[in-house]
Amino acid sequence: MKALDELVDLLTRLPGIGRKSALRVAWHLLKADESYAAALAERIVALKSSVHFCSLCGSYTEEDPCPVCSSPARDHSLICVVEQPQDVVTIEASREYRGLYHVLGGLISPLDGVGPEELHLAELESRLADGEVREVVVATNPTVEGDTTALYLKRALEATGVSVTRLATGIPVGGDLEYADRLTLARSFRGRVRL
Amino acid sequence: MKALDELVDLLTRLPGIGRKSALRVAWHLLKADESYAAALAERIVALKSSVHFCSLCGSYTEEDPCPVCSSPARDHSLICVVEQPQDVVTIEASREYRGLYHVLGGLISPLDGVGPEELHLAELESRLADGEVREVVVATNPTVEGDTTALYLKRALEATGVSVTRLATGIPVGGDLEYADRLTLARSFRGRVRL
Repeated sequence: MKALDELVDLLTRLPGIGRKSALRVAWHLLKADESYAAALAERIVALKSSVHFCSLCGSYTEEDPCPVCSSPARDHSLICVVEQPQDVVTIEASREYRGLYHVLGGLISPLDGVGPEELHLAELESRLADGEVREVVVATNPTVEGDTTALYLKRALEATGVSVTRLATGIPVGGDLEYADRLTLARSFRGRVRL
Repeated sequence: MKALDELVDLLTRLPGIGRKSALRVAWHLLKADESYAAALAERIVALKSSVHFCSLCGSYTEEDPCPVCSSPARDHSLICVVEQPQDVVTIEASREYRGLYHVLGGLISPLDGVGPEELHLAELESRLADGEVREVVVATNPTVEGDTTALYLKRALEATGVSVTRLATGIPVGGDLEYADRLTLARSFRGRVRL
Protein backbone atom coordinates (compact mmCIF):
# COMPACT_ATOMS: atom_id res chain seq x y z
CA MET A 1 0.00 0.00 0.00
CA LYS A 2 1.62 3.19 -1.25
CA ALA A 3 -0.09 5.56 1.22
CA LEU A 4 1.04 3.40 4.13
CA ASP A 5 4.60 2.93 2.89
CA GLU A 6 5.06 6.64 2.24
CA LEU A 7 3.86 7.57 5.72
CA VAL A 8 6.01 4.89 7.37
CA ASP A 9 9.08 6.13 5.45
CA LEU A 10 8.52 9.68 6.69
CA LEU A 11 7.85 8.54 10.27
CA THR A 12 11.06 6.52 10.47
CA ARG A 13 13.01 9.75 9.92
CA LEU A 14 11.80 10.97 13.33
CA PRO A 15 14.13 10.38 16.29
CA GLY A 16 13.50 7.19 18.27
CA ILE A 17 11.06 5.80 15.71
CA GLY A 18 12.13 2.66 13.89
CA ARG A 19 10.21 0.72 11.26
CA LYS A 20 8.12 -1.28 13.75
CA SER A 21 7.13 1.80 15.78
CA ALA A 22 6.30 3.66 12.57
CA LEU A 23 4.01 0.80 11.51
CA ARG A 24 2.31 0.79 14.92
CA VAL A 25 1.73 4.53 14.63
CA ALA A 26 0.31 4.06 11.12
CA TRP A 27 -2.08 1.30 12.28
CA HIS A 28 -3.16 3.51 15.11
CA LEU A 29 -3.86 6.40 12.73
CA LEU A 30 -5.85 4.10 10.45
CA LYS A 31 -8.07 3.05 13.33
CA ALA A 32 -8.27 6.46 15.00
CA ASP A 33 -10.87 9.14 14.48
CA GLU A 34 -10.56 11.08 11.23
CA SER A 35 -10.59 14.29 13.30
CA TYR A 36 -7.55 13.15 15.27
CA ALA A 37 -5.46 12.59 12.13
CA ALA A 38 -6.59 15.96 10.78
CA ALA A 39 -5.71 17.72 14.05
CA LEU A 40 -2.30 16.05 14.21
CA ALA A 41 -1.50 17.02 10.61
CA GLU A 42 -2.60 20.61 11.22
CA ARG A 43 -0.52 20.93 14.41
CA ILE A 44 2.60 19.60 12.69
CA VAL A 45 2.34 22.35 10.10
CA ALA A 46 1.31 24.99 12.68
CA LEU A 47 4.35 24.22 14.87
CA LYS A 48 6.88 25.51 12.37
CA SER A 49 4.87 28.56 11.38
CA SER A 50 4.13 29.73 14.93
CA VAL A 51 7.34 28.92 16.80
CA HIS A 52 10.36 31.19 16.17
CA PHE A 53 13.58 32.23 17.90
CA CYS A 54 13.56 34.98 20.52
CA SER A 55 15.62 37.88 19.16
CA LEU A 56 17.14 38.48 22.60
CA CYS A 57 17.98 35.06 24.05
CA GLY A 58 17.55 32.77 21.01
CA SER A 59 15.12 30.32 22.64
CA TYR A 60 11.94 29.04 20.97
CA THR A 61 8.98 31.35 21.39
CA GLU A 62 5.64 32.30 19.88
CA GLU A 63 6.03 36.01 20.78
CA ASP A 64 9.18 38.11 20.38
CA PRO A 65 10.79 38.80 22.80
CA CYS A 66 9.96 35.56 24.58
CA PRO A 67 7.86 35.53 27.79
CA VAL A 68 11.02 34.99 29.90
CA CYS A 69 12.97 37.92 28.41
CA SER A 70 9.99 40.27 28.69
CA SER A 71 8.92 39.26 32.21
CA PRO A 72 9.59 41.84 34.96
CA ALA A 73 9.18 38.99 37.47
CA ARG A 74 12.38 37.27 36.29
CA ASP A 75 15.81 38.12 37.68
CA HIS A 76 17.44 40.19 34.92
CA SER A 77 20.84 40.11 36.67
CA LEU A 78 21.25 36.38 35.97
CA ILE A 79 21.75 34.70 32.58
CA CYS A 80 21.79 30.95 32.09
CA VAL A 81 23.79 29.91 29.01
CA VAL A 82 22.55 26.76 27.24
CA GLU A 83 23.48 24.85 24.13
CA GLN A 84 20.11 24.54 22.38
CA PRO A 85 16.65 26.17 22.53
CA GLN A 86 15.06 22.99 23.92
CA ASP A 87 17.38 23.19 26.96
CA VAL A 88 15.40 26.28 28.01
CA VAL A 89 12.18 24.25 28.04
CA THR A 90 13.88 21.50 30.06
CA ILE A 91 15.18 23.97 32.67
CA GLU A 92 11.88 25.86 32.83
CA ALA A 93 10.11 22.57 33.57
CA SER A 94 12.20 22.20 36.75
CA ARG A 95 10.76 25.53 38.07
CA GLU A 96 14.01 26.15 39.92
CA TYR A 97 15.58 28.92 37.89
CA ARG A 98 14.20 32.48 37.87
CA GLY A 99 16.75 34.33 35.70
CA LEU A 100 17.10 34.86 31.93
CA TYR A 101 18.60 32.60 29.26
CA HIS A 102 21.04 32.74 26.40
CA VAL A 103 21.14 30.07 23.69
CA LEU A 104 24.59 29.45 22.17
CA GLY A 105 23.27 27.41 19.24
CA GLY A 106 25.98 24.76 19.68
CA LEU A 107 29.13 23.90 21.59
CA ILE A 108 32.79 24.43 20.78
CA SER A 109 34.01 21.22 19.15
CA PRO A 110 37.36 21.32 17.32
CA LEU A 111 36.78 17.78 16.02
CA ASP A 112 33.55 18.85 14.29
CA GLY A 113 35.10 22.12 13.18
CA VAL A 114 32.88 24.26 15.44
CA GLY A 115 34.81 27.22 16.86
CA PRO A 116 33.63 30.03 19.17
CA GLU A 117 32.76 32.23 16.16
CA GLU A 118 30.00 29.75 15.19
CA LEU A 119 28.20 30.35 18.51
CA HIS A 120 26.03 33.30 19.59
CA LEU A 121 28.77 34.75 21.80
CA ALA A 122 28.82 38.29 20.43
CA GLU A 123 25.10 38.54 21.28
CA LEU A 124 25.85 37.38 24.83
CA GLU A 125 28.64 39.92 25.25
CA SER A 126 26.43 42.75 24.04
CA ARG A 127 23.75 41.68 26.55
CA LEU A 128 26.34 42.07 29.32
CA ALA A 129 27.40 45.53 28.12
CA ASP A 130 24.96 47.60 30.21
CA GLY A 131 26.26 46.07 33.48
CA GLU A 132 22.86 44.86 34.72
CA VAL A 133 23.93 41.19 34.60
CA ARG A 134 25.98 40.05 37.61
CA GLU A 135 26.19 36.28 37.01
CA VAL A 136 26.32 33.93 34.02
CA VAL A 137 25.42 30.29 34.85
CA VAL A 138 26.83 27.95 32.22
CA ALA A 139 24.40 25.03 31.83
CA THR A 140 26.10 23.13 29.00
CA ASN A 141 26.14 19.33 29.31
CA PRO A 142 29.04 17.86 31.34
CA THR A 143 30.71 16.46 28.20
CA VAL A 144 34.05 17.28 26.59
CA GLU A 145 32.41 19.88 24.32
CA GLY A 146 30.28 21.27 27.16
CA ASP A 147 33.30 21.57 29.45
CA THR A 148 35.41 23.20 26.71
CA THR A 149 32.68 25.73 25.99
CA ALA A 150 32.22 26.51 29.69
CA LEU A 151 35.95 27.11 30.10
CA TYR A 152 36.03 29.28 26.99
CA LEU A 153 33.11 31.35 28.33
CA LYS A 154 34.85 31.83 31.67
CA ARG A 155 37.92 33.25 29.92
CA ALA A 156 36.01 35.28 27.34
CA LEU A 157 33.86 36.96 30.02
CA GLU A 158 36.68 37.55 32.52
CA ALA A 159 37.14 41.15 31.35
CA THR A 160 33.44 42.01 31.85
CA GLY A 161 33.64 41.36 35.60
CA VAL A 162 30.48 39.19 35.76
CA SER A 163 30.86 36.03 37.79
CA VAL A 164 30.71 32.85 35.64
CA THR A 165 29.35 29.72 37.36
CA ARG A 166 28.54 26.20 36.18
CA LEU A 167 25.80 23.70 37.07
CA ALA A 168 26.96 21.14 39.65
CA THR A 169 27.91 17.69 38.35
CA GLY A 170 27.61 14.59 40.53
CA ILE A 171 25.52 11.56 41.35
CA PRO A 172 21.90 12.04 40.21
CA VAL A 173 19.23 12.25 42.93
CA GLY A 174 17.92 8.72 43.54
CA GLY A 175 21.06 7.34 41.91
CA ASP A 176 23.38 4.72 43.33
CA LEU A 177 27.14 5.01 44.00
CA GLU A 178 27.50 1.50 42.60
CA TYR A 179 26.23 2.58 39.19
CA ALA A 180 27.98 5.96 39.02
CA ASP A 181 30.84 5.96 36.52
CA ARG A 182 34.34 6.87 37.71
CA LEU A 183 34.32 10.35 36.21
CA THR A 184 30.99 11.26 37.80
CA LEU A 185 32.17 9.92 41.15
CA ALA A 186 35.45 11.83 40.87
CA ARG A 187 33.59 15.03 40.03
CA SER A 188 31.15 14.58 42.90
CA PHE A 189 34.12 14.30 45.29
CA ARG A 190 35.76 17.41 43.92
CA GLY A 191 32.45 19.27 44.11
CA ARG A 192 31.51 18.05 47.60
CA VAL A 193 29.58 20.56 49.72
CA ARG A 194 29.51 21.27 53.47
CA LEU A 195 26.39 19.96 55.22
CA MET B 1 4.34 27.53 23.90
CA LYS B 2 0.81 26.66 22.85
CA ALA B 3 1.71 25.25 19.40
CA LEU B 4 4.30 22.96 20.97
CA ASP B 5 2.09 21.79 23.83
CA GLU B 6 -0.82 21.02 21.52
CA LEU B 7 1.35 18.94 19.20
CA VAL B 8 2.97 17.09 22.10
CA ASP B 9 -0.47 16.29 23.56
CA LEU B 10 -1.62 14.80 20.26
CA LEU B 11 1.63 12.86 19.78
CA THR B 12 1.44 11.23 23.22
CA ARG B 13 -1.85 9.60 22.16
CA LEU B 14 0.11 7.52 19.62
CA PRO B 15 1.17 4.03 20.72
CA GLY B 16 4.66 3.76 22.18
CA ILE B 17 5.13 7.53 22.38
CA GLY B 18 5.42 9.03 25.85
CA ARG B 19 5.93 12.66 26.78
CA LYS B 20 9.71 12.62 26.32
CA SER B 21 9.55 10.93 22.90
CA ALA B 22 6.81 13.37 21.84
CA LEU B 23 9.03 16.30 22.82
CA ARG B 24 11.98 14.82 20.91
CA VAL B 25 9.77 14.44 17.84
CA ALA B 26 8.58 18.04 18.22
CA TRP B 27 12.16 19.37 18.50
CA HIS B 28 13.07 17.36 15.45
CA LEU B 29 10.14 18.82 13.50
CA LEU B 30 11.12 22.34 14.57
CA LYS B 31 14.64 21.84 13.22
CA ALA B 32 13.65 19.84 10.15
CA ASP B 33 12.93 21.15 6.68
CA GLU B 34 9.56 22.87 6.25
CA SER B 35 8.88 20.53 3.32
CA TYR B 36 9.33 17.47 5.53
CA ALA B 37 6.71 18.65 8.05
CA ALA B 38 4.34 19.49 5.21
CA ALA B 39 4.84 16.07 3.58
CA LEU B 40 4.32 14.27 6.89
CA ALA B 41 1.11 16.20 7.59
CA GLU B 42 -0.19 15.49 4.10
CA ARG B 43 0.57 11.76 4.31
CA ILE B 44 -1.20 11.47 7.68
CA VAL B 45 -4.37 12.84 6.13
CA ALA B 46 -3.92 10.86 2.89
CA LEU B 47 -3.57 7.58 4.76
CA LYS B 48 -7.14 7.51 6.01
CA SER B 49 -8.66 8.71 2.75
CA SER B 50 -6.84 6.22 0.51
CA VAL B 51 -6.74 3.05 2.63
CA HIS B 52 -9.99 1.08 2.99
CA PHE B 53 -11.12 -2.46 3.77
CA CYS B 54 -11.20 -5.11 1.05
CA SER B 55 -14.86 -6.13 0.52
CA LEU B 56 -13.81 -9.79 0.15
CA CYS B 57 -11.20 -10.49 2.84
CA GLY B 58 -11.46 -7.37 5.04
CA SER B 59 -7.76 -6.44 4.93
CA TYR B 60 -6.45 -2.91 4.33
CA THR B 61 -6.20 -2.00 0.66
CA GLU B 62 -6.09 0.93 -1.71
CA GLU B 63 -8.04 -0.93 -4.44
CA ASP B 64 -11.10 -3.12 -3.94
CA PRO B 65 -10.83 -6.11 -4.07
CA CYS B 66 -7.31 -6.07 -2.64
CA PRO B 67 -4.29 -7.16 -4.76
CA VAL B 68 -4.19 -10.52 -2.93
CA CYS B 69 -7.86 -11.38 -3.50
CA SER B 70 -7.70 -10.37 -7.17
CA SER B 71 -4.38 -12.05 -7.98
CA PRO B 72 -4.61 -15.20 -10.15
CA ALA B 73 -1.08 -16.08 -8.94
CA ARG B 74 -2.32 -16.70 -5.38
CA ASP B 75 -3.64 -20.08 -4.23
CA HIS B 76 -7.42 -19.57 -4.02
CA SER B 77 -7.93 -22.94 -2.32
CA LEU B 78 -6.24 -21.69 0.86
CA ILE B 79 -7.54 -19.03 3.29
CA CYS B 80 -5.52 -17.72 6.23
CA VAL B 81 -7.76 -16.40 9.01
CA VAL B 82 -6.31 -13.49 11.02
CA GLU B 83 -7.51 -11.25 13.81
CA GLN B 84 -6.77 -7.79 12.39
CA PRO B 85 -6.02 -6.21 8.99
CA GLN B 86 -2.42 -5.44 10.01
CA ASP B 87 -1.77 -9.17 10.53
CA VAL B 88 -2.09 -9.55 6.75
CA VAL B 89 0.76 -7.05 6.24
CA THR B 90 2.88 -8.89 8.82
CA ILE B 91 2.34 -12.26 7.14
CA GLU B 92 2.86 -10.85 3.64
CA ALA B 93 6.23 -9.46 4.80
CA SER B 94 7.40 -13.03 5.53
CA ARG B 95 6.86 -13.97 1.84
CA GLU B 96 6.05 -17.53 2.93
CA TYR B 97 2.30 -17.70 2.38
CA ARG B 98 0.75 -17.75 -1.10
CA GLY B 99 -2.98 -18.19 -0.35
CA LEU B 100 -5.79 -15.74 0.45
CA TYR B 101 -6.78 -14.07 3.74
CA HIS B 102 -9.82 -13.49 5.88
CA VAL B 103 -9.88 -10.85 8.62
CA LEU B 104 -12.11 -11.68 11.59
CA GLY B 105 -12.03 -8.16 13.02
CA GLY B 106 -11.42 -9.46 16.56
CA LEU B 107 -11.24 -12.61 18.68
CA ILE B 108 -13.84 -14.39 20.77
CA SER B 109 -13.46 -13.07 24.32
CA PRO B 110 -16.27 -13.80 26.78
CA LEU B 111 -14.61 -11.54 29.37
CA ASP B 112 -14.78 -8.55 27.00
CA GLY B 113 -18.24 -9.55 25.82
CA VAL B 114 -17.09 -10.41 22.30
CA GLY B 115 -18.96 -13.42 20.93
CA PRO B 116 -18.70 -15.16 17.53
CA GLU B 117 -21.49 -12.97 16.14
CA GLU B 118 -19.25 -9.89 16.50
CA LEU B 119 -16.68 -11.41 14.10
CA HIS B 120 -16.79 -11.66 10.29
CA LEU B 121 -17.66 -15.37 10.35
CA ALA B 122 -20.71 -15.32 8.09
CA GLU B 123 -18.53 -13.71 5.39
CA LEU B 124 -15.99 -16.53 5.82
CA GLU B 125 -18.63 -19.21 5.57
CA SER B 126 -20.08 -17.69 2.39
CA ARG B 127 -16.57 -17.64 0.89
CA LEU B 128 -16.36 -21.39 1.52
CA ALA B 129 -19.74 -22.07 -0.08
CA ASP B 130 -18.54 -22.67 -3.67
CA GLY B 131 -16.23 -25.49 -2.57
CA GLU B 132 -13.04 -24.00 -4.08
CA VAL B 133 -11.38 -23.59 -0.68
CA ARG B 134 -9.79 -26.79 0.68
CA GLU B 135 -7.94 -25.48 3.75
CA VAL B 136 -8.38 -22.74 6.33
CA VAL B 137 -5.18 -21.83 8.26
CA VAL B 138 -6.04 -20.15 11.55
CA ALA B 139 -3.30 -17.58 12.29
CA THR B 140 -4.70 -16.04 15.47
CA ASN B 141 -2.17 -15.29 18.23
CA PRO B 142 -1.40 -18.20 20.62
CA THR B 143 -3.30 -16.52 23.49
CA VAL B 144 -6.42 -17.61 25.37
CA GLU B 145 -8.63 -15.58 23.00
CA GLY B 146 -6.71 -16.74 19.92
CA ASP B 147 -6.94 -20.39 21.00
CA THR B 148 -10.67 -20.08 21.80
CA THR B 149 -11.36 -18.53 18.42
CA ALA B 150 -9.32 -21.21 16.61
CA LEU B 151 -11.25 -23.96 18.39
CA TYR B 152 -14.56 -22.28 17.61
CA LEU B 153 -13.62 -22.02 13.92
CA LYS B 154 -12.67 -25.69 13.79
CA ARG B 155 -16.13 -26.66 15.10
CA ALA B 156 -18.03 -24.09 13.06
CA LEU B 157 -16.40 -25.19 9.80
CA GLU B 158 -16.58 -28.95 10.49
CA ALA B 159 -19.75 -29.30 8.38
CA THR B 160 -18.17 -27.62 5.34
CA GLY B 161 -15.55 -30.35 4.99
CA VAL B 162 -12.58 -27.96 4.60
CA SER B 163 -9.53 -28.87 6.66
CA VAL B 164 -8.84 -26.37 9.45
CA THR B 165 -5.17 -25.98 10.50
CA ARG B 166 -3.35 -23.69 12.90
CA LEU B 167 0.08 -22.00 12.82
CA ALA B 168 2.71 -23.95 14.79
CA THR B 169 3.58 -22.64 18.25
CA GLY B 170 6.99 -23.23 19.80
CA ILE B 171 10.37 -21.75 20.56
CA PRO B 172 11.12 -18.80 18.24
CA VAL B 173 13.94 -19.23 15.73
CA GLY B 174 17.13 -17.92 17.35
CA GLY B 175 15.47 -18.27 20.76
CA ASP B 176 16.86 -20.04 23.77
CA LEU B 177 15.31 -22.93 25.75
CA GLU B 178 16.44 -21.15 28.90
CA TYR B 179 14.27 -18.14 28.18
CA ALA B 180 11.23 -19.99 26.80
CA ASP B 181 8.29 -19.91 29.23
CA ARG B 182 6.79 -23.18 30.44
CA LEU B 183 3.70 -23.00 28.22
CA THR B 184 5.73 -22.40 25.08
CA LEU B 185 8.08 -25.23 25.98
CA ALA B 186 5.15 -27.57 26.66
CA ARG B 187 3.55 -26.66 23.34
CA SER B 188 6.79 -27.16 21.44
CA PHE B 189 7.01 -30.69 22.92
CA ARG B 190 3.45 -31.51 21.97
CA GLY B 191 4.02 -30.13 18.49
CA ARG B 192 7.39 -31.84 17.95
CA VAL B 193 8.10 -32.87 14.37
CA ARG B 194 10.01 -35.84 12.90
CA LEU B 195 13.41 -34.88 11.46
